[in-house]
Amino acid sequence: MIRKGDWTKPTTGLAPGYTQANLVILPKKYAYDFLLFCMRNPKTCPLIEVTDVGSSIPHKTAPDGDLKTDLPKYRIYRNGEFAEEVTDITSYWQDDFVSFLIGCSFTFEKPLLENGIPIRYIEEGRNVSMYKTNIACESAGIFEGPVVVSMRPMKPAEAIRATQITSRFPSVHGAPIHIGDPSLIGIDAIDSPDFGDAVTIHEDEVPVFWGCGVTPQAAVMASKPELVITHAPGHMFITDVKDEEHAVI
Amino acid sequence: MIRKGDWTKPTTGLAPGYTQANLVILPKKYAYDFLLFCMRNPKTCPLIEVTDVGSSIPHKTAPDGDLKTDLPKYRIYRNGEFAEEVTDITSYWQDDFVSFLIGCSFTFEKPLLENGIPIRYIEEGRNVSMYKTNIACESAGIFEGPVVVSMRPMKPAEAIRATQITSRFPSVHGAPIHIGDPSLIGIDAIDSPDFGDAVTIHEDEVPVFWGCGVTPQAAVMASKPELVITHAPGHMFITDVKDEEHAVI
Repeated sequence: MIRKGDWTKPTTGLAPGYTQANLVILPKKYAYDFLLFCMRNPKTCPLIEVTDVGSSIPHKTAPDGDLKTDLPKYRIYRNGEFAEEVTDITSYWQDDFVSFLIGCSFTFEKPLLENGIPIRYIEEGRNVSMYKTNIACESAGIFEGPVVVSMRPMKPAEAIRATQITSRFPSVHGAPIHIGDPSLIGIDAIDSPDFGDAVTIHEDEVPVFWGCGVTPQAAVMASKPELVITHAPGHMFITDVKDEEHAVI
Repeated sequence: MIRKGDWTKPTTGLAPGYTQANLVILPKKYAYDFLLFCMRNPKTCPLIEVTDVGSSIPHKTAPDGDLKTDLPKYRIYRNGEFAEEVTDITSYWQDDFVSFLIGCSFTFEKPLLENGIPIRYIEEGRNVSMYKTNIACESAGIFEGPVVVSMRPMKPAEAIRATQITSRFPSVHGAPIHIGDPSLIGIDAIDSPDFGDAVTIHEDEVPVFWGCGVTPQAAVMASKPELVITHAPGHMFITDVKDEEHAVI
C-alpha cells in the first residue's frame, strides 16, 4: 500500500508486532563518521541495519522492501536546511547513498503496555515529550551533539518494571538513562519539551527518560551535510522483523 | 609493566575482573568496511571501542592507555601474510591507522565459573577449541568469511544456565549460537578443532558453541590488506572497564 502511494499517513499502529525504524540516508563520504557515531552512542542511535553503498534494499530486515518507495513520507534536507517533503525518493536516489535504519521506541512500548504500564502521550493523544540534555554524545568525525531523551511519566514501581522490560531490548534504546529529577540531566522546564508535546505528570509519578532516535538526526543536521534524506516524523519504515526478536533475554 | 616491556607473556589471569580485548589495527581505507562487518556480525565481532583515525588512545575504555605500547605482544601481517611479532608498534605507527577493540570470551567465563560451570580447556591446561562453521558471516565490502565458534562442553542443565548467564553480555558474544550436534553447523570432526586444542567431552555432556573473536581476524586475513596489526594470541589489551559493566541486565 505504501509503495503504491495508497498510504501516506503516519505508520503508528500499522503491522502491530513488526519493528518500525527511523531512516537516515547519507552520501558515502559521510557514512564512516555516522556509522562510528552510532556505534559509539548505542543507547541513542541503535542501528538495526546499514545497507550496502548504492543499494536501497534492506537485505537483513526486509529483503523484499525498497527504501526508495516503502516509507509513506520522506524529508529532504540540503546543507542542514529542510528542502521538501516527498512520498517517493526514486528520482533523488544516488549511487553513493548509504541508508541507516535506526531502532525506535515503538518496539519497547508494546511490552510496557502489555505489562500494564500506562503511556501518557498515547492516553492523551499527543506526541511523546523529548528534551535535549546536558549529556554530550561521544563525537565521531563531523558528528556531535547532545543526548536527546524521550520521557514517560509513571509510578516508581512501574519505573522499576519498565527498567527490567526495556533492558531486554538493548538494540532499541535499552534501559532508561535517567529516572527522576530532570535538572540532573540539564532539563530545566519539564513542561516545555524541545520536541513533541508536554504530557501530564501526576503527583505520585516520576519522569523516566530513554535515549531517543532524534539524537542521531539532530547530530546529522548540525553538521550540515550537502544532502540527507530521512523519514518524515512518525512515517517510519516497517521491517519484516518481529519486535520480540530484538530481545536479548 | 607491559608498557615498560617488563611483561611480554599472555595476559590470562592479569587484572582479574577487568575486560580484556582483541585488537585489530587497519589503515583508514579499510575501516568503513570493517566497522560495517562488525556491526553486521555482532555475535562474532562485538566492538568494544573504535579509536579516532591516527589516535592510539582508547578514550572510552582506557583513557590513560596507549595501543602502541600497552599490549605484551603484537603480530604484523602484510598482504595477509604473517610478517613479524613485536612487543611495541611505535615505529610501525601510521597517521591513517584505526584501532578496533573487540570483546573477548574471557569476560563471560568468569561468571560461568562463579556459577559452578566447568570450563574444560582451563581444567585441562589447553587452549579453547575453535571451529569454522558452515554459517556465513554477513559480508561487508571486502570482508567476508565463515562464522568461527568456540566450544565448551558441559551438562545440559549447565548449558541452560550458561545461556542465561551469557545472554546478559551481548557486547561480548552474548548467548551461544548452537548447542548439541556439531554437524548441524558444519563441524564434522569435533576432535579436530580448526584453531586451539581438542578437549575431553564426557558422555553426559553436550558441546556448547559461542561466536568467537577469531571470526573478524580470519575475515581480515582472507581479504589480504596491505597491512594489519593484531594482538598476538592470548596477549590481549587490558581495559579500565569492569567485566560486569558489559552486562545489560
